[in-house]
Amino acid sequence: MKVPDFAVPIDQRYFEDYVPGSVYEYGSITLSEQEVIEFARRFDPQFIHTDPRAAASGPFGGLIASGWHTAAVMMRLFVDHYLSHVASMASPGIDELRWSRPVRPGDTLSIRASVMEANRSRSKPDRGMVRSLIEVRNQDREIVMSLQAMNILRCRDLQGA
Amino acid sequence: MKVPDFAVPIDQRYFEDYVPGSVYEYGSITLSEQEVIEFARRFDPQFIHTDPRAAASGPFGGLIASGWHTAAVMMRLFVDHYLSHVASMASPGIDELRWSRPVRPGDTLSIRASVMEANRSRSKPDRGMVRSLIEVRNQDREIVMSLQAMNILRCRDLQGA
Repeated sequence: MKVPDFAVPIDQRYFEDYVPGSVYEYGSITLSEQEVIEFARRFDPQFIHTDPRAAASGPFGGLIASGWHTAAVMMRLFVDHYLSHVASMASPGIDELRWSRPVRPGDTLSIRASVMEANRSRSKPDRGMVRSLIEVRNQDREIVMSLQAMNILRCRDLQGA
Repeated sequence: MKVPDFAVPIDQRYFEDYVPGSVYEYGSITLSEQEVIEFARRFDPQFIHTDPRAAASGPFGGLIASGWHTAAVMMRLFVDHYLSHVASMASPGIDELRWSRPVRPGDTLSIRASVMEANRSRSKPDRGMVRSLIEVRNQDREIVMSLQAMNILRCRDLQGA
């Protein structure tokens, strides 16, 4: 079953278009072993992420991607498909990030984005805060990571707070 | 004032060594403009992270690093200096990640790690969960990012739960 996309394209999307209850799915990006090792050598040099031989006898029985690599791939899908290209002002942060299953080289990741809350600012009525639940899934549709993202978005209607 | 490090080196550190109330500081890593742009082109291609000219007239008055790049640099300092190289088993996730100030090319980042909680597992007494507050600071000691990290660590004393 195909999940519908936003009614407006990503370069015409404003705060008002993020309606709580809406769910979208986007993908996909496949991680190679070389990418997993390169990212981890630079940012997360633990043997489970950098050394296939040592990782084989480690806690996950093989090489797994750094959780921060999975987060970065999530962000690429989030920016390419979900987050407005014209109205995004800033992100205050992330809540409840969970790494629920290992991501292995060759895994193909996609995201499912659910709009949880959308609150227009009272003090600055030209913008609002959107809270989204992002679930990252592998090719077997298992959730490998989830998080709640906060984004401040400009309103289309700058008057009607 | 120099903050003292753990009593035991990182390759001999176990669950028992993470004592709530302890605070450690480690650094530093400097981000170049080229690194900021390369990371963002791959994982977070928003103009504030990839295009110095457009970013100059954007909301931050110049290029800023992707928040996920800052997180990745935080992880490098966390793995190099704080997280045990022998006892780390997994990380369930992250809570309350906040990006409080922009990180700009040329900024030099360090971390301050505070052990918040350390709870030995009742069901699996060979391990325990450590919750740490990680604050990332720039060269002016301003906090640019903070988060709570959860890590499952093996115990030195495998019997005494």
